Amino acid sequence: MARIACFGEMMLRLTAPPGEMMLQSGHLDVYVAGAEANVAVALAALGHRPEMVTRLPDTRLGDVAIEQLRRHGVGVGGISRGPGRMGLYFVTPGAGPRPPEVLYDRRDSSFACSGAGDYDWNALLDGADLLHLSGINPALGEGPTAAANAACETAAARGVRVSFDANHRASLWEARGADPRDLLSPLIRQAEIFFGNHRDISLLLDRPFSGEGPDRRREAAEAAFAAFPNLKFIASTARHVDDASTHRLAARIDTPESFAQTEEETVAGIVDRIGSGDAFAAGILHGICSGWDLERTVGAGLAMACLKHGLSGDFAPFSEPDIEAFLAGGGDVRR
Amino acid sequence: MARIACFGEMMLRLTAPPGEMMLQSGHLDVYVAGAEANVAVALAALGHRPEMVTRLPDTRLGDVAIEQLRRHGVGVGGISRGPGRMGLYFVTPGAGPRPPEVLYDRRDSSFACSGAGDYDWNALLDGADLLHLSGINPALGEGPTAAANAACETAAARGVRVSFDANHRASLWEARGADPRDLLSPLIRQAEIFFGNHRDISLLLDRPFSGEGPDRRREAAEAAFAAFPNLKFIASTARHVDDASTHRLAARIDTPESFAQTEEETVAGIVDRIGSGDAFAAGILHGICSGWDLERTVGAGLAMACLKHGLSGDFAPFSEPDIEAFLAGGGDVRR
Amino acid sequence: MARIACFGEMMLRLTAPPGEMMLQSGHLDVYVAGAEANVAVALAALGHRPEMVTRLPDTRLGDVAIEQLRRHGVGVGGISRGPGRMGLYFVTPGAGPRPPEVLYDRRDSSFACSGAGDYDWNALLDGADLLHLSGINPALGEGPTAAANAACETAAARGVRVSFDANHRASLWEARGADPRDLLSPLIRQAEIFFGNHRDISLLLDRPFSGEGPDRRREAAEAAFAAFPNLKFIASTARHVDDASTHRLAARIDTPESFAQTEEETVAGIVDRIGSGDAFAAGILHGICSGWDLERTVGAGLAMACLKHGLSGDFAPFSEPDIEAFLAGGGDVRR
Amino acid sequence: MARIACFGEMMLRLTAPPGEMMLQSGHLDVYVAGAEANVAVALAALGHRPEMVTRLPDTRLGDVAIEQLRRHGVGVGGISRGPGRMGLYFVTPGAGPRPPEVLYDRRDSSFACSGAGDYDWNALLDGADLLHLSGINPALGEGPTAAANAACETAAARGVRVSFDANHRASLWEARGADPRDLLSPLIRQAEIFFGNHRDISLLLDRPFSGEGPDRRREAAEAAFAAFPNLKFIASTARHVDDASTHRLAARIDTPESFAQTEEETVAGIVDRIGSGDAFAAGILHGICSGWDLERTVGAGLAMACLKHGLSGDFAPFSEPDIEAFLAGGGDVRR
Amino acid sequence: MARIACFGEMMLRLTAPPGEMMLQSGHLDVYVAGAEANVAVALAALGHRPEMVTRLPDTRLGDVAIEQLRRHGVGVGGISRGPGRMGLYFVTPGAGPRPPEVLYDRRDSSFACSGAGDYDWNALLDGADLLHLSGINPALGEGPTAAANAACETAAARGVRVSFDANHRASLWEARGADPRDLLSPLIRQAEIFFGNHRDISLLLDRPFSGEGPDRRREAAEAAFAAFPNLKFIASTARHVDDASTHRLAARIDTPESFAQTEEETVAGIVDRIGSGDAFAAGILHGICSGWDLERTVGAGLAMACLKHGLSGDFAPFSEPDIEAFLAGGGDVRR
Amino acid sequence: MARIACFGEMMLRLTAPPGEMMLQSGHLDVYVAGAEANVAVALAALGHRPEMVTRLPDTRLGDVAIEQLRRHGVGVGGISRGPGRMGLYFVTPGAGPRPPEVLYDRRDSSFACSGAGDYDWNALLDGADLLHLSGINPALGEGPTAAANAACETAAARGVRVSFDANHRASLWEARGADPRDLLSPLIRQAEIFFGNHRDISLLLDRPFSGEGPDRRREAAEAAFAAFPNLKFIASTARHVDDASTHRLAARIDTPESFAQTEEETVAGIVDRIGSGDAFAAGILHGICSGWDLERTVGAGLAMACLKHGLSGDFAPFSEPDIEAFLAGGGDVRR
Repeated sequence: MARIACFGEMMLRLTAPPGEMMLQSGHLDVYVAGAEANVAVALAALGHRPEMVTRLPDTRLGDVAIEQLRRHGVGVGGISRGPGRMGLYFVTPGAGPRPPEVLYDRRDSSFACSGAGDYDWNALLDGADLLHLSGINPALGEGPTAAANAACETAAARGVRVSFDANHRASLWEARGADPRDLLSPLIRQAEIFFGNHRDISLLLDRPFSGEGPDRRREAAEAAFAAFPNLKFIASTARHVDDASTHRLAARIDTPESFAQTEEETVAGIVDRIGSGDAFAAGILHGICSGWDLERTVGAGLAMACLKHGLSGDFAPFSEPDIEAFLAGGGDVRR
Repeated sequence: MARIACFGEMMLRLTAPPGEMMLQSGHLDVYVAGAEANVAVALAALGHRPEMVTRLPDTRLGDVAIEQLRRHGVGVGGISRGPGRMGLYFVTPGAGPRPPEVLYDRRDSSFACSGAGDYDWNALLDGADLLHLSGINPALGEGPTAAANAACETAAARGVRVSFDANHRASLWEARGADPRDLLSPLIRQAEIFFGNHRDISLLLDRPFSGEGPDRRREAAEAAFAAFPNLKFIASTARHVDDASTHRLAARIDTPESFAQTEEETVAGIVDRIGSGDAFAAGILHGICSGWDLERTVGAGLAMACLKHGLSGDFAPFSEPDIEAFLAGGGDVRR
Repeated sequence: MARIACFGEMMLRLTAPPGEMMLQSGHLDVYVAGAEANVAVALAALGHRPEMVTRLPDTRLGDVAIEQLRRHGVGVGGISRGPGRMGLYFVTPGAGPRPPEVLYDRRDSSFACSGAGDYDWNALLDGADLLHLSGINPALGEGPTAAANAACETAAARGVRVSFDANHRASLWEARGADPRDLLSPLIRQAEIFFGNHRDISLLLDRPFSGEGPDRRREAAEAAFAAFPNLKFIASTARHVDDASTHRLAARIDTPESFAQTEEETVAGIVDRIGSGDAFAAGILHGICSGWDLERTVGAGLAMACLKHGLSGDFAPFSEPDIEAFLAGGGDVRR
Repeated sequence: MARIACFGEMMLRLTAPPGEMMLQSGHLDVYVAGAEANVAVALAALGHRPEMVTRLPDTRLGDVAIEQLRRHGVGVGGISRGPGRMGLYFVTPGAGPRPPEVLYDRRDSSFACSGAGDYDWNALLDGADLLHLSGINPALGEGPTAAANAACETAAARGVRVSFDANHRASLWEARGADPRDLLSPLIRQAEIFFGNHRDISLLLDRPFSGEGPDRRREAAEAAFAAFPNLKFIASTARHVDDASTHRLAARIDTPESFAQTEEETVAGIVDRIGSGDAFAAGILHGICSGWDLERTVGAGLAMACLKHGLSGDFAPFSEPDIEAFLAGGGDVRR
Repeated sequence: MARIACFGEMMLRLTAPPGEMMLQSGHLDVYVAGAEANVAVALAALGHRPEMVTRLPDTRLGDVAIEQLRRHGVGVGGISRGPGRMGLYFVTPGAGPRPPEVLYDRRDSSFACSGAGDYDWNALLDGADLLHLSGINPALGEGPTAAANAACETAAARGVRVSFDANHRASLWEARGADPRDLLSPLIRQAEIFFGNHRDISLLLDRPFSGEGPDRRREAAEAAFAAFPNLKFIASTARHVDDASTHRLAARIDTPESFAQTEEETVAGIVDRIGSGDAFAAGILHGICSGWDLERTVGAGLAMACLKHGLSGDFAPFSEPDIEAFLAGGGDVRR
Repeated sequence: MARIACFGEMMLRLTAPPGEMMLQSGHLDVYVAGAEANVAVALAALGHRPEMVTRLPDTRLGDVAIEQLRRHGVGVGGISRGPGRMGLYFVTPGAGPRPPEVLYDRRDSSFACSGAGDYDWNALLDGADLLHLSGINPALGEGPTAAANAACETAAARGVRVSFDANHRASLWEARGADPRDLLSPLIRQAEIFFGNHRDISLLLDRPFSGEGPDRRREAAEAAFAAFPNLKFIASTARHVDDASTHRLAARIDTPESFAQTEEETVAGIVDRIGSGDAFAAGILHGICSGWDLERTVGAGLAMACLKHGLSGDFAPFSEPDIEAFLAGGGDVRR
């Protein structure tokens, strides 16, 4: 059971009902969300002790975010409140041939307006085994960039392992008006665990990888290990989208010396694809924190990612028995 | 941007919730519908200026039909109100192995009771580029038959192009007690664009087409072009039903000189199949009115038809970028 | 049209909404259920005259069970009321990669607390053609075991055919603390129709069947016919679970002299898999009571089982035309 | 426990959600309804054996009407099926200052199209203690008028008591184009129990009653008893509408010799006012069939009417203990 | 039938279900809203030709605002699209003793970011009879202030009457950091119709009014007429809140020479109180544009305001017959 | 901010939708509940640190109870898991004239099956300021009785104040087959704070109180202070039920020397009355723990009780500002 600080923005996700356009009927289902918060919730369900670090508005909407974290067993002592708004995003789920759509409305959120001075990292990381954060932080503005750097540096200084998920959002970076390479590299330099595929590494290192499939992924991983010598693990998924209801998913983890790669799993009957990448990260972190071998670790990541597609909302509160049942096959009703 | 008059009956569709029998629980979802109204809504979303021509009861139910057309940007100046009821139909959606069911309750609707004298076609077609109507009109009774004939003749006289969708409903024709051939032929004779497949043409020309697949379709199209010399385009889809959730769909367009035919597209995760034929018609009309070549036109028709399967209700308010995204593949969430 | 007494426990099924964990949002959909009641409802829809025999609590929850039977045309004159609670079970439907889950809460139900003295079988079976019951009865306790034995013996004495569905529930038997073989054998000995596969027969006869596929099933059936000489029909399904949304299903019926076996049917887009075994039993009983041949009988069973997957709730109120339409293929909307 | 034949049309009521205009969102809640069917359902809950006599279309909508009667314990053996449609009506519930609205769509229903030859009254009334019907029947057309007359005459001939509810619907009579006096009088002449107030009697006898309040009501009752010498009971309510959520209700019953009159009861927090008149009739019939005195009978009628306002749908399935609890006051949660 | 330009911000209102705290369950109902848009929708239902003038984001959320205006018959030709977000507000409806709560999230909306240069008032007011706007505009920022001034000046120059609703929002003005008096006075100076009570006038003229009830209101009105010589009508409501479900409402209109004042109306069973002030304004404008006398005008205003409390959402699409029915009393279901 | 241990059973409440009978449609809304848990949740919202002590089944239903406590900020470290079922109760909300109904299904719950040995009170009360429990505990069986006695004795020994709510449930005591006086007296003897009215005290002391209204209440309080010398506070409400939607409520608190009594408050538009007694207890405990005077304390109790009637579910998560706003009147929407 690891103690894991998760740092990032929290949002409300406002979702149209299945089979409808946004506000076709006027109903929305709302979920609390956020890449790092999603990881925290999944880690809590897997038996760890995650603590969320973020900044929320001092309104009922901020309260709701805290309520949902507490409900799922995530520590909220590291959350401060302040001015600014609650970040929102609107999701129109896809259906069969109709693709999903996302509309962000997160400008001027309390988190985006927060700065390095709002977080006392020595206190926040006291007793932590791991710090998890993502590339969304530096994409949100100067304040979160500075706070993320301070977090990673303090973690490094205190011997807290750092896990970093690239989570590339092109539209955010475009609005940010900065080169992701410049802002991400200092953070990844402190990280031991990196979530990203060959395209993310290409972007970071400003070079292409020309191989095919697994070879290209290994080539990219080796380049990343060379560029960021603290890195010990690189994990990623490869997703093929047949339509909004059926995807195919494979997972892979690389170390400097070795790697493990799963078969491609067909994920049909998709209910909600959002958050599956965060579920994957939680599964991988669970394996690493549990000292599992690469095969078992990447299997746990794939299982968490696949299971998430069958559940509404951003969270993936699955347990270790759920992972094992998934990997064992089966799937009929258990009486 | 074409100005298009759409003439036909409007109805309310009362739909059981997914996975339930009709009135298993007592809830119904209601959509405004009607073959030509569906085409009008889709054309508005594609950037055209459709005007609905119909007759509705002077009740709140008639108001609702007008509200939904206005909402989607369809002109309602050509709608008159009168006695009679609102046409209804009850839909039990299928699910997997269970097929959908439709129960019509459209007898004595305001539209079915309307006659040629209720429509001033010279005024209604003033400024129009196109008149679109379907074979449901003559199937509804003497009045609509006369009105449809007057519409087509006035259109011909004024140089307004006519688009005609066969939309064969065997049960309606049975109740009508007339031979569809007799009533449809005068209308199609005025048309430049015809929606119907080899079975529709067989029925019209009272002869079989013996070839296989594409050959039979071409043979039928050539026979139709010969019989109706004004026709310039014949468009149709071929649908294979695996179960209520998965269909396969291909589209085709013929001109006297040439044709284009798409690959068969698998449409899985179907939410609502009703209205997909009207979405197809709108896509084809969009291509023809935009002067696109046959390939692009038939692709737009297929895209509109496929996308419709992913949306609840009869309407298909998709835009040209939606069509392009569909044809380009993709389909994962765009952030 | 046969008169069929169905004896067993009735329960309320409390079901989480699609795509959600149990009580993720706080809503439950409730259905009346029970293996033998499900068979009764399906038989009523198929045109027979089923009568439910059970014991229900004298509360509004017991009233609801009776209301739903009456709604579906099942006779309720054989239902007595008493102390004890209403048996409940909580179902979390699966979705794609996430399997369904069932949590039983049926201890101390009015039925489980009932005993042989609560049922006057001579009156209850007066005029009946068939008695249907399942192996759940003896698994529920001493009282239901005694009542089931009395039922079967009275049926045998009166010349009423007995149909018995193994319906093996390992967790119930574990809690019962008894060997199913000891309690089931006396019941099956009176039966003419048995629902169970080679695993059920293995358990009953305490021996393995080593063959592959159909051979093993025939071997098991022959062993059962030898051990229970009253048996004339053994029917079973074979199910392969791809994921929560897609199963593959085949059906088989054996007589001492012959058998019939269907192709494997893919059941995709599953809405609700629970009760499909009972729907199968009803289809088979319908065939047998109608004097159909084995091919048609097993087809009816498979059709009922498959159709059930497309409908919410435990009941399968499909009619003979539904069965015929399923077996004929088709499946597009009928207008 | 009386056996009571209830004769009249059944309809589906399609209801907008609370607080909304008709089809403001697109949801409707559907209830089975019909003045005489409502009485039948309430009588079943009060322990009697009602049998519905009506004609329904041979569609799923007709099935649903039968299912709901069966669910509530009403006999359906007297229901025949035929061509024609299901009668519908659309209800927009009021809320506070906004009044409710009703839109009928019952033209050409199977019942309205039925005639005297469709009902074998000697068989239908065999064993019956009472025939209950309302003034809606003759308002629906020639066929139902003839059938109602045949019913009343057969009842008279067989010594079956007749109960007749005026149920005046001005708009129906206007469409009928007949004088209600001419058509209602022959029916009321056979009746022993009449539901109607001084305005109904005014209409029937074509004369005004000039007194105030109770005096005027007694004067009207005495005139009715004089005009229809078979009458033994006249029952009515007086309703004052404060707004859509709060009404005040009093009830009264007259015999030729005496009468009983309740206090005015304030009915606040109204959920659904439709069907409360039918609930009143059931309460009165229960009292008369039980041989209760006038005070207790009129109290039961008022209780049934008031309780109905707190329940969605047309039905009032309340029991005798519910009536007693209402009359005893109380009203807090019972644990 | 007047042509009326309505200028102001549009928002989405996100509403918790009845009886729940904000996001207690995760459902929201969404309505399109905005003080001036609400007036426009009500005026359209009353038979006028309103045109909305606003600026909306170029996203699906902006499309939805336009769809709902079109649905209700409001002209949308005066709406431009631009950068910025959609203004939102979250509403927790009250229930009995629990008061409603509103949380605004409208910063940086497309409208708040728009400026005088975004509106071509000569074109927008061409053919208009009236310009309606409210004091929310100047409270939103420099741009809307400048645009409102340009609108009023252009209207004055073109002889278009101006209607101005104070619509005081203390929290908005606090955030604006400006004195409402300075920004409102130039606008009201151009107005002929003013909606506001003695407190609004106190604020504008920076002086108290010491009388009681009607006297104080007349004193304030006379002071306003003196200060703003173009003013011809001042209209206002007086509201007493018993609890969230019951309010009492009176209305008043003053001219320089005269006034009319209604009785206090009790509004019980409140469904949704938001937008009732805008419904009042529409009723008053309808009376003034129809040339009604003060009594009838203020009655129409009160009727519209009261009726609105019975309908969910911000809109009040009531017709003149609805007003008349309300003023005539009644309120029971009409069949 | 006090640390408060709350000891008692937790249940799931399954609630029919507003305006419906239990399972009229098949929907239920589920809330986590329990007298002491309700107090704990309200105390958390008021800023205290409550810790729940209970025993829950080791199933998903038990998880849900813990999730909801955590969500509301209640400590769950004192909750153990074990065999047995989750206690349930079914609620049919009343509406206007129709009273609410409750059906308990709590037999054999994990808590009812727990015994003194399952709770280590020295650990559980370590650091606590207060122990709160109710008379439901001894009514549930021998084990909870013993556990409650151990809790109170340990609290007394450690100097932890004890708060005891009579919470008399006649049906529970009847099933228990014991005299409440015998089992309650030892617990109340340890208590400093007692929630109960003159009827509860009558029952405890086996004597009547003959005075009228406040006099009788004071007489009863003085008798209780005499009988239980540790008692310092006795608090109670007096409730008059007009109908299911309107109650009148007054509150009172007595000390040996003094008392405070509120005016009667009319609570109209009731959404959910269940849990209002627990909300009252939380308000009183908040006042006592905050050292408030009797007037302010009893006002807080009344405010919490009244506010609860406007919120669905058993919980009353209101804050001190909510209390103050209620006591200050007001109640219109705040913008």
